[in-house]
Amino acid sequence: MQSNSHTQDASPVSGETAAPMHAIDVIRKKRDRGSLSEAEIRFMVRGAASESIPMEQLSAWLMACWLNGLALEEIRALTVAMRDSGVKFDSSRLEKVTVDKHSTGGVGDKTSFLVAPIAAACGLAVPMISGRALGHTGGTLDKLEAIPGYRTALTLEEFEAVIVECGAAIVSQTPALVPADRVLYALRDRTGTVESPGLICASILSKKLAAGLNALVLDVKTGSGAFLRKREDADYLAALMVATAEAAGTRTVAVMTDMSQPLGHAAGNWIELVESVDLLSGKRPSQSEDLRELSLILAGWMVYLGGKASSAEEGYGKAETTLRDGSALKHFYAMVAAQGGDVSAFDDPAGFHKPGATFVLKAKQTGWIAAMDTTALGWAVQRLGAGREKAGEPVDAHAGIDFHKRRGDFVTAGEPLATLYATNESLLAEPIALIEGALTFSGVAPEAVMLVSRVFTRDEAVAFLGAV
Amino acid sequence: MQSNSHTQDASPVSGETAAPMHAIDVIRKKRDRGSLSEAEIRFMVRGAASESIPMEQLSAWLMACWLNGLALEEIRALTVAMRDSGVKFDSSRLEKVTVDKHSTGGVGDKTSFLVAPIAAACGLAVPMISGRALGHTGGTLDKLEAIPGYRTALTLEEFEAVIVECGAAIVSQTPALVPADRVLYALRDRTGTVESPGLICASILSKKLAAGLNALVLDVKTGSGAFLRKREDADYLAALMVATAEAAGTRTVAVMTDMSQPLGHAAGNWIELVESVDLLSGKRPSQSEDLRELSLILAGWMVYLGGKASSAEEGYGKAETTLRDGSALKHFYAMVAAQGGDVSAFDDPAGFHKPGATFVLKAKQTGWIAAMDTTALGWAVQRLGAGREKAGEPVDAHAGIDFHKRRGDFVTAGEPLATLYATNESLLAEPIALIEGALTFSGVAPEAVMLVSRVFTRDEAVAFLGAV
Repeated sequence: MQSNSHTQDASPVSGETAAPMHAIDVIRKKRDRGSLSEAEIRFMVRGAASESIPMEQLSAWLMACWLNGLALEEIRALTVAMRDSGVKFDSSRLEKVTVDKHSTGGVGDKTSFLVAPIAAACGLAVPMISGRALGHTGGTLDKLEAIPGYRTALTLEEFEAVIVECGAAIVSQTPALVPADRVLYALRDRTGTVESPGLICASILSKKLAAGLNALVLDVKTGSGAFLRKREDADYLAALMVATAEAAGTRTVAVMTDMSQPLGHAAGNWIELVESVDLLSGKRPSQSEDLRELSLILAGWMVYLGGKASSAEEGYGKAETTLRDGSALKHFYAMVAAQGGDVSAFDDPAGFHKPGATFVLKAKQTGWIAAMDTTALGWAVQRLGAGREKAGEPVDAHAGIDFHKRRGDFVTAGEPLATLYATNESLLAEPIALIEGALTFSGVAPEAVMLVSRVFTRDEAVAFLGAV
Repeated sequence: MQSNSHTQDASPVSGETAAPMHAIDVIRKKRDRGSLSEAEIRFMVRGAASESIPMEQLSAWLMACWLNGLALEEIRALTVAMRDSGVKFDSSRLEKVTVDKHSTGGVGDKTSFLVAPIAAACGLAVPMISGRALGHTGGTLDKLEAIPGYRTALTLEEFEAVIVECGAAIVSQTPALVPADRVLYALRDRTGTVESPGLICASILSKKLAAGLNALVLDVKTGSGAFLRKREDADYLAALMVATAEAAGTRTVAVMTDMSQPLGHAAGNWIELVESVDLLSGKRPSQSEDLRELSLILAGWMVYLGGKASSAEEGYGKAETTLRDGSALKHFYAMVAAQGGDVSAFDDPAGFHKPGATFVLKAKQTGWIAAMDTTALGWAVQRLGAGREKAGEPVDAHAGIDFHKRRGDFVTAGEPLATLYATNESLLAEPIALIEGALTFSGVAPEAVMLVSRVFTRDEAVAFLGAV
């Protein structure tokens, strides 16, 4: 394999004029509600990546973008410029169709461990660049690092080698990849400019598209555990991301999925891997049905968009086959081993699991579980030791919560609601209070919530945005 | 005199809550169109002055203020917080009523050299803190420094001593005075957030009010040489400044004055002082009539607001007396000498004037001068050497333009239009072209423009703002 062969686009855009640009002019234009050209956006993004534009100018520009908004064409230009702001993963050398999945984040959301090996088993390549625990949601990388020896910080060359060998790899972002997002995201965090649909869209997609994807499935969460609490905001972001990614040349759909309760029964690090491996092994625990169903739907879209099925439904069927025939599990174990992980930990998952303290939380009342504050449940998981207070801190591989009851279940006082695993006993009190406060009991059964409420294909996304 | 006796207010505002504040929350509040409290504004201003709030947060906040605007009460709080952000001049020890005048900047605007000694001669104290050449306008300090030995950088103790001795002093800002404005102004300049009425108002007034003024007369320029070209913008800023300064406890009026041509006949550094001394000596050159009239009107308001006359008209009369009886000139010379200036330069002003190159520009056509692009004329003055390209560069005391013709004059081809004084011959070409392009000739006489078109007292300002 050649080294340094991944592409870096730092050449002038063709058609860019020779006149020197000034950040102050771009700031004033957006301040005055002008439409920024592709060249102007690329100038700001390159200036962010190279740190040649001072932070105060980037901040003023971000606030002007936040307040005056970005048009679809500006968002596309911003996404592409950010994608191209550093080194990119050259997926063309894989000689396979590349697909990925991105979720806006939830509690117990472990579909990556299922869809990546399923898609790989269906003949696709999955170059998945993931993140860490953030706020009330867990991190894919933190979960994988519960496996002894698993390395997430691969070079792009190692990343490519694992995908060639196993069809999928799940790694952390390298500093050279999408440097503009690193700078702009840190600024947005400090300047109150995070919650802008256009800026969120460009941040998410630039990182995904820098992996050279042919197709992308977006899992946009709705409900009490979702980052975007308002349904209309979630729909808008989903449509925006689909239209933008499609305009940038990647086939994309967004699936709007329920996060009004944790996905599956486990939320933590190691215990989420165990639940995933159970499903990959063909088991069907009743408390994991929603996780299995959503993983197959998402994988079905990946298989369809990747050209390995003629419809998402046919993709679903092919995905299900890989769970039954063991090929998905085989791909998962191969990937873990190729990334340095000790697969033997899964031989006795319960024996490997060594939390510092365990507590079975029992119901204090009888009735139906009518609603859950899933964000509070996510915080309970993190506070048990599964998450971190500050970037860079270690997380506890063994902390987490096993939920024994789901929304809509009838519970009798004294029945176990959940088993809590903490780093130590002192960390139990706050999560117990959080869980008890998060559950709403009722004398009547609640109405069911659809797992998937809507799918935005390109045409549906464009129509939705046109009607807003 | 005690040293270090000028006041610095760094104590918590009474009524401020004990809860810690965060810049990000203040940014978000203004971003979301909230009204900022006095405590929130004071927090941001102190953070700017102490540089404890990072530049990127201040910039995002400034852009949110620019785009979402500031209410009158927020502008008052911002002005007061900026005024109090550093050391203040304790004018109470002067045991006189303190008055000042501020102009929004023009070409040939030298009224400070008249109104300061006139007000002093009428028994008032004038603690005038002035600025340098900026853009197309000249700087009061640059002009004064044309006098050999004149020191503008006095300590506050020296400033006080000169005022006690002469009734007036004209000095530069000290770094300890209004440090928040120094930080915020530099940021606004880089982030496209200069042209906000509320931010401009707070920046101007905070510096003036830090001198401890009892009364302030604002000269807001209109017409082709004014910073604010739109009349409605100039009226709005004038009313805003009057209402804000009055709410901060300083009696204030704004006089809307014509800047559709240079004020008086001279524009430069030394030559403006000479024109001023001619008027202070009781001379009445016809080309200086507008300067004399405006100076007396402004001084009349200063004398009235300072309690030395029962009306602005009576103040005008008293001001005129100080020109006739030589008392204003005596105060001017005393101030110059007290600040280290060699008054003997005025014994032979023409002999002292030694420009590097002189050129008499003659009219190429016959007709009435119908209009002037006064901003272009101002640039011509600066480019001859009177101004600077970058802060910190020296200026030429002898560069400038003597205008021989005014708007409305009938000119015959071949008649001298203006005499240009340049640092050297090579600097003549661009100003000549600028002047020729700035004059509009016509076959008919233009309509006269009123020198003073409107006066905003407190009540008129409040009524105007209420009706906007």
